[in-house]
Amino acid sequence: MTDDRSEGQPAGQAPEVAPAVAPPDRGGRRISRRGLLGTAGVGAIAAAGGVGYALGSDKSELQPTSHSAQAVAFEGTYQAGIVTPAQDRLHFAAYDVTTDDRDELVSLLKEWTEAARAMTAGREVGDGAVAGSPYAPPDDTGEALGLPPSRLTITVGFGPGLFEDADGKARFGLDGQRPPALAALPHFIGDDLRPERSGGDLAIQACADDPQVAVHAIRNLTRIAFGRAELRWSQLGFGRTSSTTAEQITPRNMFGFKDGTKNIKADEADALDAWVWVAEGDGPDWLAGGSYLVARTILMRIETWDREPLLAQEEIVGRTKGSGAPLSGGDEFTEIDLEAKNAEGEPAIPEVAHVRLAHPSLHHGARLLRRGYTFVDGNDELGQLAAGLFFLAYQRNPHTQFVPIQQALADADIMNEYILHVGSAVFACPPGVDGSGWWGETLFG
Amino acid sequence: MTDDRSEGQPAGQAPEVAPAVAPPDRGGRRISRRGLLGTAGVGAIAAAGGVGYALGSDKSELQPTSHSAQAVAFEGTYQAGIVTPAQDRLHFAAYDVTTDDRDELVSLLKEWTEAARAMTAGREVGDGAVAGSPYAPPDDTGEALGLPPSRLTITVGFGPGLFEDADGKARFGLDGQRPPALAALPHFIGDDLRPERSGGDLAIQACADDPQVAVHAIRNLTRIAFGRAELRWSQLGFGRTSSTTAEQITPRNMFGFKDGTKNIKADEADALDAWVWVAEGDGPDWLAGGSYLVARTILMRIETWDREPLLAQEEIVGRTKGSGAPLSGGDEFTEIDLEAKNAEGEPAIPEVAHVRLAHPSLHHGARLLRRGYTFVDGNDELGQLAAGLFFLAYQRNPHTQFVPIQQALADADIMNEYILHVGSAVFACPPGVDGSGWWGETLFG
Repeated sequence: MTDDRSEGQPAGQAPEVAPAVAPPDRGGRRISRRGLLGTAGVGAIAAAGGVGYALGSDKSELQPTSHSAQAVAFEGTYQAGIVTPAQDRLHFAAYDVTTDDRDELVSLLKEWTEAARAMTAGREVGDGAVAGSPYAPPDDTGEALGLPPSRLTITVGFGPGLFEDADGKARFGLDGQRPPALAALPHFIGDDLRPERSGGDLAIQACADDPQVAVHAIRNLTRIAFGRAELRWSQLGFGRTSSTTAEQITPRNMFGFKDGTKNIKADEADALDAWVWVAEGDGPDWLAGGSYLVARTILMRIETWDREPLLAQEEIVGRTKGSGAPLSGGDEFTEIDLEAKNAEGEPAIPEVAHVRLAHPSLHHGARLLRRGYTFVDGNDELGQLAAGLFFLAYQRNPHTQFVPIQQALADADIMNEYILHVGSAVFACPPGVDGSGWWGETLFG
Repeated sequence: MTDDRSEGQPAGQAPEVAPAVAPPDRGGRRISRRGLLGTAGVGAIAAAGGVGYALGSDKSELQPTSHSAQAVAFEGTYQAGIVTPAQDRLHFAAYDVTTDDRDELVSLLKEWTEAARAMTAGREVGDGAVAGSPYAPPDDTGEALGLPPSRLTITVGFGPGLFEDADGKARFGLDGQRPPALAALPHFIGDDLRPERSGGDLAIQACADDPQVAVHAIRNLTRIAFGRAELRWSQLGFGRTSSTTAEQITPRNMFGFKDGTKNIKADEADALDAWVWVAEGDGPDWLAGGSYLVARTILMRIETWDREPLLAQEEIVGRTKGSGAPLSGGDEFTEIDLEAKNAEGEPAIPEVAHVRLAHPSLHHGARLLRRGYTFVDGNDELGQLAAGLFFLAYQRNPHTQFVPIQQALADADIMNEYILHVGSAVFACPPGVDGSGWWGETLFG
């Protein structure tokens, strides 16, 4: 139960377990989310609350049996929530900035940072839900009172619209600061994008092992934004669709297939530098140490998919449904052999299989760090589950990574018969902050 | 970590841990969700996977740190999922029966029962996702492959429309079988019910500690129903809003308040008999040992609520936000004293406080077994979180329990300024089944 293998340190990041800082006592009314840690000690929680595995006969039967209660450090070279071992739940929100005043925007970013610093440590926002004046609305909405940090991470991104309005006129004095790569994605064949699920000037990705903790974060940040930015769209997700460490079991998406086997892992330092982190010289200085986030809301026509024979499903994906092994042979983690032939002399991985079209060898080696989640938003008016994949991918440059890969998929992937892209957004995520830093400091500071 | 206090046995129920039955090996392609149990043994999993608590300084700081991987017995005197310790996640679905053929309806109920029996034990539906013919669509959709049972329960209910059509004409030969108490709920002041979130001939409540397991259950049952019943509405939920055992920590709803402190607990055998289980003689024989389920989808205007002063919030509820103690004094579990006065000589529990209006003493002692969940369905077009409470309450007779309580609340509760009932349904849930039984056996058998 205390096998903490999923908690490996990502390359170049600060230690993941934050020091326990007891919040101030405010007249005895304050109930601290960190009381738990303050009493038992961080070490005990890290041991007791880490994601554990029940040992089966082989790795394919290892499954997490518990969720971590611990805190993930907010400060660091990079923002948390990118290479942090993927949590189980997501609440993502995109905002339109409604103020025209640069100072108000900066104030918002500073207040957001302070609230994120508190919530990721398991503390309440401001004076909390019950410790302030009884004659004033509480600073914190309270539904996370008593809940541990649950590995909450809060990650911020800036959309193209923060820099320029629709006519190309600079906003907030950010002339020349928009990175060239922070540009609208091209239209892909089959896209059916809904404005109400796309775009946004600001993005917040809140991930936690407890959905109530992730929802609490988005709710309170939305509340803080009042009068300066408003919620444009949001998405909840569960059952992450990628592992971000070698030790996490590859989860299954709503097609029933393992998804994310070849994802960039947190310990692949060279790959992170090559494909995830924006380097100095890539663009404006303010984004060095940051990353680009592409978010795509992909409806999955699961009723149609479920009517396909198993073999057809496997040939569309290019992997077996059971073990996730490539159709060219081996086990889940065997390298895909695009040259392999089957008994009939045909390519073992069909020419239009998803894994072939997306393979790095066809895209100058390009890889993505995916961090997507499954969603089910009830059902549509036809009585079909409104289910799909909320695709999130971090990368160094979307226009040399996501775009060519998605172009290849949009053009030829048979899977397109079973999916529909209805939302799309791109954000530039600034580097991490230090103990006194704030989101956007390198851009506005 | 192995403190299993939340796993107490409900009165009158079969043991909660099902025996480990290894599924048949089907040519080596089958990957068993129970492989985990088969290897480690049920005892080991029960110890490793039970909901544990990290010990803080007092009970208010006890928090679950892990989720159970174990199975809940499907068979029993009563259906599982009613007094079963509330799981953390919900997927609820209501269906319209589209066939007019009684035999087809019976076949559906038998197939559903068999699938529910398999899934709650951690097995796949039918031949599974990968073990059948590769030239046929798999029996199981596969996204729960490799996941443990996660305490999945699947509970069925029958709506009034299963017995009679809109003109009062009997369906499926069920003349005289509709219990008088299974009648549409009256209109309550302020109701804004949407047909697409209300009613239904059949209901399935799937609860599990892993949302992917609950979603998998609804998806596969919906698929099995094809041509006989279709999904009418569905709701996902998280962060249960009631404890159903004395050991579960009372969770907080989206108003930030503890919700469900006075809920009927699984070990209150007398209260279960008085207020939850339908007794022989209450109505048609087929429902003895069953229960009625009232489902209400309640939107919460959280942005408005969040602007209220703390004191106002507490007076609307009648309890403190921090500890959940009644405003008449004591701690969370102190009995509410409706006669107590405050320093100003006014009732300590205001006349229109929610806990007063719903208090059993005003309703002939009537209590409910609540099993609700919080939901957040993204946001509305105004950028407000589409959040609320999916209220589920089991009871012996909705027209002497839920209806008078809700009438009192609808008439006077100030909380109505902050909530909106948009969905409503009532179902009669038959008794449990034995090892060869099927849902509806007492009604159709």
